[in-house]
Amino acid sequence: MPKRSAAKRTRTETPSLRGKIWIEIGGRPALTDAGADLLEQLDVCGSVSEAARRLRFSYRRAWMLVDAMNKKWHAPLVTKSIGGERGGGTKLTPLGRIVLRSYRDLQLRLEHLLDRSTEGFIRSTR
Amino acid sequence: MPKRSAAKRTRTETPSLRGKIWIEIGGRPALTDAGADLLEQLDVCGSVSEAARRLRFSYRRAWMLVDAMNKKWHAPLVTKSIGGERGGGTKLTPLGRIVLRSYRDLQLRLEHLLDRSTEGFIRSTR
Repeated sequence: MPKRSAAKRTRTETPSLRGKIWIEIGGRPALTDAGADLLEQLDVCGSVSEAARRLRFSYRRAWMLVDAMNKKWHAPLVTKSIGGERGGGTKLTPLGRIVLRSYRDLQLRLEHLLDRSTEGFIRSTR
Repeated sequence: MPKRSAAKRTRTETPSLRGKIWIEIGGRPALTDAGADLLEQLDVCGSVSEAARRLRFSYRRAWMLVDAMNKKWHAPLVTKSIGGERGGGTKLTPLGRIVLRSYRDLQLRLEHLLDRSTEGFIRSTR
């Protein structure tokens, strides 16, 4: 008779609880994972081309995403300043920061919910 | 000068927080919304063809989904009994019931999380 631990090792992999969140306006996505990652990188490096490179997005995709987000919300999430001492740059607006922070906070709370629920779920399905 | 309430009415629609959950085994979906809906209908009507009709799935899609779920988990979620007094039928196994109930429970907790977070989020983005 095989030992219990040996039987366990050969069993199908353990289930994991997964989830994702997004923000909609007018029934259409206004912030998704990709948008949040882009806002975050823009905040760090202040340049769409650099943010796109870091995320392995095409420059075109990154700009279209910025543009789509800016149009979706009642005020822009990102502004581009032209010229100036450091040759301009791309920055999050106060609204952009608030939206990004709220999104990350909600993501964290979802992760906690999934973590908290996992053990009981695994136990109940054994 | 327009009144504040008039200005509000013309503003872009209010953002809403959205989310979804699923269960993975070995990095691949093992229960999604569609699967849960199918399990639920199978539990109610005991027939894949009737469940498929109610959900507007093709019969083929419904069977493939049942088959995929049964193979993914360490034991089947659905069994088909052949013949018998009522001509056989399709039933959830005890594991199928547990998985479905856990999934619905987690969905509910996600909805609560989104509901709880909405008011503060809306307020912070005004």
